[in-house]
Amino acid sequence: MDSVKNIAKKAKNASILALKLSSEIKNNALSMVAKALEMNIDNIFIANQKDLDNAKLMLQNGEITQSAYNRLKLDDNKIRDMIQGVKDIALLPEPVNNIIWSKDIAEGITLKKVSCPIGVIGVIFEARPDVISQIVSLAIKSSNAVILKGGAEASETNIQIFNIINDTLNSINEFPKNMINLLFSREDVKDMLDADEYIDLIIPRGSNSLVKYIKSNTKIPVLGHSDGVCHIFIDEDADIEKTIKVCIDAKCQYPSACNSVETILIHKNIKDKIFDKLLTAFKNNSVKVNFEVDNWHKEYSDKIVSVKIVNNIDEAISHINKYGSGHTDCIMTENDENAEKFMLYVDSAGVYKNISTRFADGFRYGFGAEVGISTNKTHARGPVGLEGLTIYKYKLFGNGDIVEDFSSGKRKFYK
Amino acid sequence: MDSVKNIAKKAKNASILALKLSSEIKNNALSMVAKALEMNIDNIFIANQKDLDNAKLMLQNGEITQSAYNRLKLDDNKIRDMIQGVKDIALLPEPVNNIIWSKDIAEGITLKKVSCPIGVIGVIFEARPDVISQIVSLAIKSSNAVILKGGAEASETNIQIFNIINDTLNSINEFPKNMINLLFSREDVKDMLDADEYIDLIIPRGSNSLVKYIKSNTKIPVLGHSDGVCHIFIDEDADIEKTIKVCIDAKCQYPSACNSVETILIHKNIKDKIFDKLLTAFKNNSVKVNFEVDNWHKEYSDKIVSVKIVNNIDEAISHINKYGSGHTDCIMTENDENAEKFMLYVDSAGVYKNISTRFADGFRYGFGAEVGISTNKTHARGPVGLEGLTIYKYKLFGNGDIVEDFSSGKRKFYK
Repeated sequence: MDSVKNIAKKAKNASILALKLSSEIKNNALSMVAKALEMNIDNIFIANQKDLDNAKLMLQNGEITQSAYNRLKLDDNKIRDMIQGVKDIALLPEPVNNIIWSKDIAEGITLKKVSCPIGVIGVIFEARPDVISQIVSLAIKSSNAVILKGGAEASETNIQIFNIINDTLNSINEFPKNMINLLFSREDVKDMLDADEYIDLIIPRGSNSLVKYIKSNTKIPVLGHSDGVCHIFIDEDADIEKTIKVCIDAKCQYPSACNSVETILIHKNIKDKIFDKLLTAFKNNSVKVNFEVDNWHKEYSDKIVSVKIVNNIDEAISHINKYGSGHTDCIMTENDENAEKFMLYVDSAGVYKNISTRFADGFRYGFGAEVGISTNKTHARGPVGLEGLTIYKYKLFGNGDIVEDFSSGKRKFYK
Repeated sequence: MDSVKNIAKKAKNASILALKLSSEIKNNALSMVAKALEMNIDNIFIANQKDLDNAKLMLQNGEITQSAYNRLKLDDNKIRDMIQGVKDIALLPEPVNNIIWSKDIAEGITLKKVSCPIGVIGVIFEARPDVISQIVSLAIKSSNAVILKGGAEASETNIQIFNIINDTLNSINEFPKNMINLLFSREDVKDMLDADEYIDLIIPRGSNSLVKYIKSNTKIPVLGHSDGVCHIFIDEDADIEKTIKVCIDAKCQYPSACNSVETILIHKNIKDKIFDKLLTAFKNNSVKVNFEVDNWHKEYSDKIVSVKIVNNIDEAISHINKYGSGHTDCIMTENDENAEKFMLYVDSAGVYKNISTRFADGFRYGFGAEVGISTNKTHARGPVGLEGLTIYKYKLFGNGDIVEDFSSGKRKFYK
């Protein structure tokens, strides 16, 4: 097999050829991919069963968790969603080769800002085989080449899905070869992180430790989040019923998700009215409540929640900016001024009013799909859809123009 | 003096307080800064003279170059431009707290994408004292805190300009303290690069080796360019006269600038018509022409240019994508189809048709000012103005909404 460096080099070349891909070719490719996946559902299940058989042994030996096992398992719903996801991405607007703006900067000189693909995206993900088709579809739609490194536990399923998609793309004449690539071993990750000459962006989707390792070991920009320490602040003007409903959803609807809540901050003036009711609700939903917390940075990813009484909204905001991860934080209040203050000063990708933190998701935001959720302060923040896989270039059109004419004062730029 | 970590921590706190700054306060602050600089021009010249006296000795001892000495020297024009720059930035549109878009994602749920500052920007620059007022003005306008590390050669001038600006900002009650900060020593750079907990973006402005060192030694995103290896491709359909004019401007107007041309690629079919004329023009402008080049990646930053004959436009594009730095590359041609092809496939921040590469500059693009030129493929590319100092957050407004209602099918998102 090719070295990772060679694979990355070929992907870079493919990404240049991909610059010419029309919307028609790309959307047709996505339709063909969806059809091919549909026709091969049985083969995908057979491959997934092999991974599940292996994983069952690992589960029995305590080498993986039950939730990792669950994420690995594909069922009819997941496959249907996966295929529908590919079709939905074909329907999204064309993300590249759009003129963002155009202006004349001087007589006869026109500047255009034009959207374009980033180039080569490296995606490192753990045992979620449904990620492949989502990432590849977004990459096709945005004319990016992609190098995927999946978890070993899902290797049979990954290979099966990857081959179905790759064979389909290779059958399309106009489509560049080597646009999508799959790596397998843990050693390949290191080589990927070193290939900064060819890879333009790394997107890790996995555990905190994976993301932290990646951020510390590459010069390539990394898009993602290492933690999801989300908060709900119950303001003194909160509606009790709504608040309890939102807190339960934010913790229990999918406790291992990064957008589930970890810490509830309660304004001291509403404590007497809500405390017992909230505790009862958590108890009824088998949620363990922590009052004595030694690490407010901790992401439980489980049916556990920290609770703290705060003196005022300022203390809540400071707590969140200090201990949060900049992911998604919510205020429950009927007071618009307090909501506005909270949403201005909390420095997170998502700042919410009266709504569950679980809404932080590219599908729910209407992006069609997401490549992940970013807590970066540059490039892309929050759920990242197609837009996060694009950048722009400047096209400047002249007619023999020189800077010297402007420096000497002979010509002037428009104001 | 405070440790760098403490300075960065205070800057982070200032950046949170800065979120509330209105356009009025910020623009007023910029007017006051411009006025204070005007009133202190004599003091700035006195400080600059001290730096120049030191630099003269270093120049005589061969410790710095003549062009470094020239960059250090402030004259009436530079100071006037510097002060005008501050005033111009006040006139730019407000870059933060703008609603980029707003949409209802389901009944009663509104999502708003809102522009906001990045937070704390670290800027590391070499001996160009006029950089301080430009960077600080852009930071004020975009509500970012900033930590500046200037070159030791310009320390007297830097301190003088910094103190004038900082005293002005400190005299404004509504303005947070510690928004702008100046570091001095080389050791401080290392501490800055380690302060990823507080600093959100590093912008280096200086030599290749400085930028490469920074990129290799921090987890903080870095915005900038290490090389400026710009090309002009003379297509077979180029206009001879325009081409020679543009080539001379691109090389000679300011040879040490990153946007000056380093390599001229000539289509073999036009060689006979242009070669001698071009060589004569370069000779008349004291430019040395290299035909035997062993390193096409090299940035001369001097009156030296490499020349290569290519067989066709594809060879030119491949050469540029292989050896260029993704900065700015130009095609000289009267053939629109060739221009379109070149501008699509050349993977650079700026792709030009019939115009000098020297136009790659934030002022010339109409951005009012620039924090630098980026060859990154993420966040910001090309000349970076105010927009590159902003990001966005998502604000989600509900009324007690929970994801479970959507998962269960009870409610539906809008398509």
